[in-house]
Amino acid sequence: MPDNLEKFTCLKRDIAKINIDPLQRGGILTPAAREALLEWGDGYSICDFCAGMLDRITNPPVEEFVHAVLPEFLGTDEVRVTHGARESKFAAMHALCEKGDWVVMDGNAHYTTVLAAERAGLKIEYVPSSKEPDYAITAEGYVQAIERAYEHKGNVSMAVLTYPDGNYGNLADAGAISGACHDYGVPLLLNGAYSVGRMPVNARELGADIIVASGHKSMAASGPVGLLGASEEYAKTIFRLSPTKKNKEVELLGCTVRGAPLLTLMASFPAVVERIRHWPEEVEKARAFSAEMEKLGMKQLGDRPHNHDLMFFLAENLFEISQKAKKGRYFLYRDLKERGISGIKPGLTRQFKLSTFGLSKEEMDEVIRAFDEIINSYENQ
Amino acid sequence: MPDNLEKFTCLKRDIAKINIDPLQRGGILTPAAREALLEWGDGYSICDFCAGMLDRITNPPVEEFVHAVLPEFLGTDEVRVTHGARESKFAAMHALCEKGDWVVMDGNAHYTTVLAAERAGLKIEYVPSSKEPDYAITAEGYVQAIERAYEHKGNVSMAVLTYPDGNYGNLADAGAISGACHDYGVPLLLNGAYSVGRMPVNARELGADIIVASGHKSMAASGPVGLLGASEEYAKTIFRLSPTKKNKEVELLGCTVRGAPLLTLMASFPAVVERIRHWPEEVEKARAFSAEMEKLGMKQLGDRPHNHDLMFFLAENLFEISQKAKKGRYFLYRDLKERGISGIKPGLTRQFKLSTFGLSKEEMDEVIRAFDEIINSYENQ
Repeated sequence: MPDNLEKFTCLKRDIAKINIDPLQRGGILTPAAREALLEWGDGYSICDFCAGMLDRITNPPVEEFVHAVLPEFLGTDEVRVTHGARESKFAAMHALCEKGDWVVMDGNAHYTTVLAAERAGLKIEYVPSSKEPDYAITAEGYVQAIERAYEHKGNVSMAVLTYPDGNYGNLADAGAISGACHDYGVPLLLNGAYSVGRMPVNARELGADIIVASGHKSMAASGPVGLLGASEEYAKTIFRLSPTKKNKEVELLGCTVRGAPLLTLMASFPAVVERIRHWPEEVEKARAFSAEMEKLGMKQLGDRPHNHDLMFFLAENLFEISQKAKKGRYFLYRDLKERGISGIKPGLTRQFKLSTFGLSKEEMDEVIRAFDEIINSYENQ
Repeated sequence: MPDNLEKFTCLKRDIAKINIDPLQRGGILTPAAREALLEWGDGYSICDFCAGMLDRITNPPVEEFVHAVLPEFLGTDEVRVTHGARESKFAAMHALCEKGDWVVMDGNAHYTTVLAAERAGLKIEYVPSSKEPDYAITAEGYVQAIERAYEHKGNVSMAVLTYPDGNYGNLADAGAISGACHDYGVPLLLNGAYSVGRMPVNARELGADIIVASGHKSMAASGPVGLLGASEEYAKTIFRLSPTKKNKEVELLGCTVRGAPLLTLMASFPAVVERIRHWPEEVEKARAFSAEMEKLGMKQLGDRPHNHDLMFFLAENLFEISQKAKKGRYFLYRDLKERGISGIKPGLTRQFKLSTFGLSKEEMDEVIRAFDEIINSYENQ
């Protein structure tokens, strides 16, 4: 063993005052979740009163949360807690699809949807988006993708819609898409990693048979933790019990999240339900921010007017600056950081995404001011 | 939504002064890990400086921890961080075995090993233990189990040894068992959920091709977090890259633990390395405790003299009390709790397991005194 292991202790996060990374805006803990972290931090802390099934623990009240509150919250029949949205997607695919089957997914799908399908041995038929500037996904696209998979003599056993996608923050017409999939008898999995916990989402109303969510991405929870919801028809296969080990669900390997992350999810939940009520304000904020960015010469791609806090910008002016700036393509990252702002990936200038979720008016103004100052500082050189 | 969601906040653990649950003794956080929890609690907190691969993050120093420190610590070529030992086992089986293959495992295997095999679609051939009082597992047993699987015309693609098992705390002769498996060309997976982080374990020295560990069970980490180590030969399949998503490992769905649990594992690591140096003292403590329990009329099953802090006791005297006691079979749980001790499952009296790991001499004395008092209080009735 190396001598200096102390370097792995006392590590501090080097974080900026304002973080506009879409991945992180929805995962900032509430004060109640921070308390839960400390109280339930030890290894198997929620197992003190477990009789063998994680989701049936009554002290703390996991059972009520998982079997009563979450199904109503997601608008689905059964819900389980998982390690995250990607693990939920894999579990659903692994349980419901056979190796060699086809899964149809939107061209804007998160990379983890692709990995989940690859891990489950599935072939992928994409629904291409409409390309720049909208990158829209349509129900007709799903019909065509399913038809193409059939032409390969494939069995299409699942469709996935990313709602919204993680690049453009586009919210496709999920109702129309689920209708199209159901016409072919294909169940729809809705990836709500960027929606559940931020905005109202009801699987039943949208026609989604399966829904996945991310605690650390959008539910103010300490990861890894996520949700997997399913209608009765699919839940009985996904959450099937072991033939040999009583009361243990095979696809979840018995229990999933066995400690603090689940308790942070529960502790933040009242605040999450409350913030969802304010979603129209978040959309207004995003639109106002987008308008300000466009005044500075950048262009917001994807849905217009935009319906989500995650936004994608094309910035030819910043790209031009990067061609001349001393720090090259890292100038934007560094100049923003100097102004207390982080979350745009180092090296990106021509196109990038960001989120305004949960930012105050003052913080949004500060971000806009920073972009304005940076652009001006190079134009005046 | 129900009105009263506040019940999910401010939840407190109702814990006893001394917890002798084997599941929990090794997962109690160090002060450094508690600091890490708060510092890195937010959702995707370790992703601030990620360039696309979790295990290559240099700030915090995940890369050095995962690629240099952990392989040396486990005595294996490649290591990745996972959601826990069960998830590690499934990942290895799913990557290395074909559906319908056979896996050979010890009869003392943890239920999650069975679930991992069932989830991966594998058939199981058990190596029976020698039954009471030793419950021993031998290399010859593995030879016979592999032969039996061959008789079913099965392809045996993995063997698993639980080291130690979670019932008796038995440490089988892993070297002899790996030798037997290798004679048949079968790789051995060592389940170190109860050993790695408590005692010295070196996969290479024991002949294990794959090794799994549990952060929340035995490495003083906040779960869910575990390790999956493999020799080069198997690592290249388990940790294969996606054919379509650059730098993403399919079996891990890209990233696994994306926040605080990994940082708590790192923060506790120096203390874990240090406590392993004191393992001989832990064994001495366990043996002394066992001797005291036997003086009180109970019998320790499994390896004798015992080589691990996890011990299984047969207590006919407590069972007899339960037949007459007012609280019936719950008397032991309640009487211990009254004395500030928890960790024996409610309702158990005739046989139960416990752990002395990390207990001080005074705490061990207190537990023995409690058993003594309880037994006497009923005998004098």
